[in-house]
Amino acid sequence: MKAVNTDETPQLISADKVKGTEVYNTSGEKLGTVEEVMIDKTSGKVAYAVMSFGGFLGMGEKYHPLPWGVLTYDTDEGGYRVALSKEQLQGAPTHDRNEKIDYSDPAWNTRIHDYYAVPPAW
Amino acid sequence: MKAVNTDETPQLISADKVKGTEVYNTSGEKLGTVEEVMIDKTSGKVAYAVMSFGGFLGMGEKYHPLPWGVLTYDTDEGGYRVALSKEQLQGAPTHDRNEKIDYSDPAWNTRIHDYYAVPPAW
Repeated sequence: MKAVNTDETPQLISADKVKGTEVYNTSGEKLGTVEEVMIDKTSGKVAYAVMSFGGFLGMGEKYHPLPWGVLTYDTDEGGYRVALSKEQLQGAPTHDRNEKIDYSDPAWNTRIHDYYAVPPAW
Repeated sequence: MKAVNTDETPQLISADKVKGTEVYNTSGEKLGTVEEVMIDKTSGKVAYAVMSFGGFLGMGEKYHPLPWGVLTYDTDEGGYRVALSKEQLQGAPTHDRNEKIDYSDPAWNTRIHDYYAVPPAW
């Protein structure tokens, strides 16, 4: 049984529900699935939704940290929509599934926010 | 296997790691455990950490939505610390485990933020 039975309201969504939500581009192509939500401890803001992309049975799979601001929930699609082609996504900051990344690293943070042209998370 | 292997950095924490973290008061008494993280869709800010409190085998258990701002992570305790006695917590806005609550309801939101004397989440 789910611990908290209200996992979505008009204004709020549980972290549990964000995880596993599919991500599409504006052409309706599926880009990936949200694997994790990283929260900035100080501000309490979601810094990144980490999306998995590509691969087969976990092999070759890539992780893309997406700033929360680039994700728009599309009720028709039942998933998030980002204005990125698959080609643009392939050039985006990414890491391997098993690579240990410090998402707090300022260089990494700047790189991601520059790429998506949104203000840095902190 | 955990999807994303960096669940905490100096600045960031995964929603997965927040969930299940224990909550203590300033006297070191355990108040409860974080059950869910509710995110404001528009701002991407954590609106509430929903803490479970009391009960036995799920019976009589209460859910307390706590504004993110009242939670301070205490590295010695390995959990969150809130400046609330057990008595104060018993008077705090709460709901039963099985009660369907719309956390977006402005009246509920105002009530919670008034109680904890922090600015409203949205």
